[in-house]
Amino acid sequence: MAEEPKNGDAVGSGVGGREADEEQVVNPWEVTAKDGGKIDYDKLIEKFGCQRLEEPLVRRVERLTGRPAHVFLRRGVFFAHRYLQDAFKVPLVIQLTDDEKCMWKNLTVEESKRLARENAKDIIACGFDITRTFIFSDFNYVGSAFYENMVKVAKCVTFNKVVGIFGFTNEDHIGKISFPPVQAVPSFPSSFPHLFSGKDNLRCLIPCAIDQDPYFRMTRDVAPRIGYQKPALIESSFFPALQGETGKMSASDPNSAIYVTDSSKDIKNKVNRYAFSGGQDSIENHRKYGANLEVDIPVKYLGFFLEDDVELDHIRKEYGAGRMLTGEVKKRLIEVLSELVERHQRARAAVTDEMVDAFMAVRPLPHMFS
Amino acid sequence: MAEEPKNGDAVGSGVGGREADEEQVVNPWEVTAKDGGKIDYDKLIEKFGCQRLEEPLVRRVERLTGRPAHVFLRRGVFFAHRYLQDAFKVPLVIQLTDDEKCMWKNLTVEESKRLARENAKDIIACGFDITRTFIFSDFNYVGSAFYENMVKVAKCVTFNKVVGIFGFTNEDHIGKISFPPVQAVPSFPSSFPHLFSGKDNLRCLIPCAIDQDPYFRMTRDVAPRIGYQKPALIESSFFPALQGETGKMSASDPNSAIYVTDSSKDIKNKVNRYAFSGGQDSIENHRKYGANLEVDIPVKYLGFFLEDDVELDHIRKEYGAGRMLTGEVKKRLIEVLSELVERHQRARAAVTDEMVDAFMAVRPLPHMFS
Repeated sequence: MAEEPKNGDAVGSGVGGREADEEQVVNPWEVTAKDGGKIDYDKLIEKFGCQRLEEPLVRRVERLTGRPAHVFLRRGVFFAHRYLQDAFKVPLVIQLTDDEKCMWKNLTVEESKRLARENAKDIIACGFDITRTFIFSDFNYVGSAFYENMVKVAKCVTFNKVVGIFGFTNEDHIGKISFPPVQAVPSFPSSFPHLFSGKDNLRCLIPCAIDQDPYFRMTRDVAPRIGYQKPALIESSFFPALQGETGKMSASDPNSAIYVTDSSKDIKNKVNRYAFSGGQDSIENHRKYGANLEVDIPVKYLGFFLEDDVELDHIRKEYGAGRMLTGEVKKRLIEVLSELVERHQRARAAVTDEMVDAFMAVRPLPHMFS
Repeated sequence: MAEEPKNGDAVGSGVGGREADEEQVVNPWEVTAKDGGKIDYDKLIEKFGCQRLEEPLVRRVERLTGRPAHVFLRRGVFFAHRYLQDAFKVPLVIQLTDDEKCMWKNLTVEESKRLARENAKDIIACGFDITRTFIFSDFNYVGSAFYENMVKVAKCVTFNKVVGIFGFTNEDHIGKISFPPVQAVPSFPSSFPHLFSGKDNLRCLIPCAIDQDPYFRMTRDVAPRIGYQKPALIESSFFPALQGETGKMSASDPNSAIYVTDSSKDIKNKVNRYAFSGGQDSIENHRKYGANLEVDIPVKYLGFFLEDDVELDHIRKEYGAGRMLTGEVKKRLIEVLSELVERHQRARAAVTDEMVDAFMAVRPLPHMFS
């Protein structure tokens, strides 16, 4: 589905370590830009050995699927799970890493498992097709063929290697050191014999945020050594915090992000009070200089969530020229987000425990390719 | 079932490392005495923080079970699985670490699983009671409650700790580093909900050779931190090689051990040609000085396998005084071993694949305590 990079995978050249001279840190547990600035994606692409997802590839996707690419693809910002499944009619396997949460967030096993089921509800509410989707949590599913693949992967990766890739230290617990193979093996069809028995040569496409890349750099390095296909990846940039791209969305600061559990009132309040504006400090200056779209969060958020390309272009032009004010842009964003979040909340409320069980049942998916 | 040691468990003070100044190395993958000499068990007991299994404890076992202790207990040489189950009427869980074999011996997953089933046949042939015995292999059983316990244990153990206990290095693969929790968690009843649901407070007794102690030193350290009982251990000395206690039984030298697959002719040949004798170099000297029982392998082997205490004492006395010759002792050993091995071979030939499946089925054992 994706092109095989021509350059080698840069396993071991990760940016996991936390040395003093590092410019930015992007690993699965920490994302920090240089000097409190923005994440430099060009540098990441170079360091991680990824390939830029450029216009011709997006056009190719459109040609193959016979429909316009999802906004997240055509605006170069994000991947799109559901879009990919809709457009390509492919089976989708979603891993909920409750064991990782348990180990990194120091939650109990029970709380991690409960949160995984809550996650599953949000995922199901996005509208995945149950005839093509298998959701599993590690605590429920690790074992058998999956565990065999974990051992196969683990045999190929030294402690020094995971130090290089993930920045582990000698004081890290061995749960963390054991975890990368758990994240790696869903890349291999043989980890899911109930789905892909006899189809070991299928190649997996992994849509993920770029901070997860280290896992799959490792996976791509190991795959051919154990007789498996390398997974392909489509990697997203990070969604900026309300306070601006140099800020950080943080679980400890509820005002740094819009939650899918927020009310319309919450959304209105957060956007108006906290969304970093690129508008000028007075109406006079704004009319004169226009908004700085490079740093304006309402415009960036609209770039993610406003489907209509024509309207988005219009807002960018008018706002950038100072003819539209921050208040108007924020008002439009509040509408878009409120509608999105309300729609999600309605869909999520309709997700029952039985539906979660059904999506997570270990079962064949006979129509997953049709 | 066993006394709780009064001294603390010496986790971290292991002898796993391979430093130049070490006297002897005893860890799950390597057993080497100092300067090619004998293993110093006193030193091991001190280093590992174990307690000697002394006469009063053996007497207590006899009192509790109302029968004489097994020869391996009363002669202070070995533990006895089957004896313990017979005598105490307890459930027995046997872990076959096929994943460990796969990782340390570099076997394929398939070959490791096949060998585990072959092992299971030898174990079943020893006469375990299927109503009280659950045999599992890691590749088949790891997952669910067992995996949850693996994660709980792994969270409590740092890389530095396993380096201290097992002597891992930075160049070891992470499969090895991940493995100790797999070996640890069968100590906890909650790893087997089909057997011990609601009986989390049962204490497990682990009979093992002392080279496996590092795993359980770690386990005993972790257990109270995750709310579980520490396992108790009964630890065996090593079975000496035919070439003598300073030699090593080695898979690459078939003449270093008697195999359960050996024919009577093989046994006769191996004992006569290779069993290290403590007898003197001439009949005259032998009659004069007697045999050195401290180094004599035929007498040591008879100590393991000749049930009759009176006959054993007689042989020791006569041979030690030079009235009995090496040839006579070897003849008796050949008889004892041939009978034992033939009995085992007959029993093993009767073990079907269906019996292996039955012992390994994940099932409740409703009569395991009756």
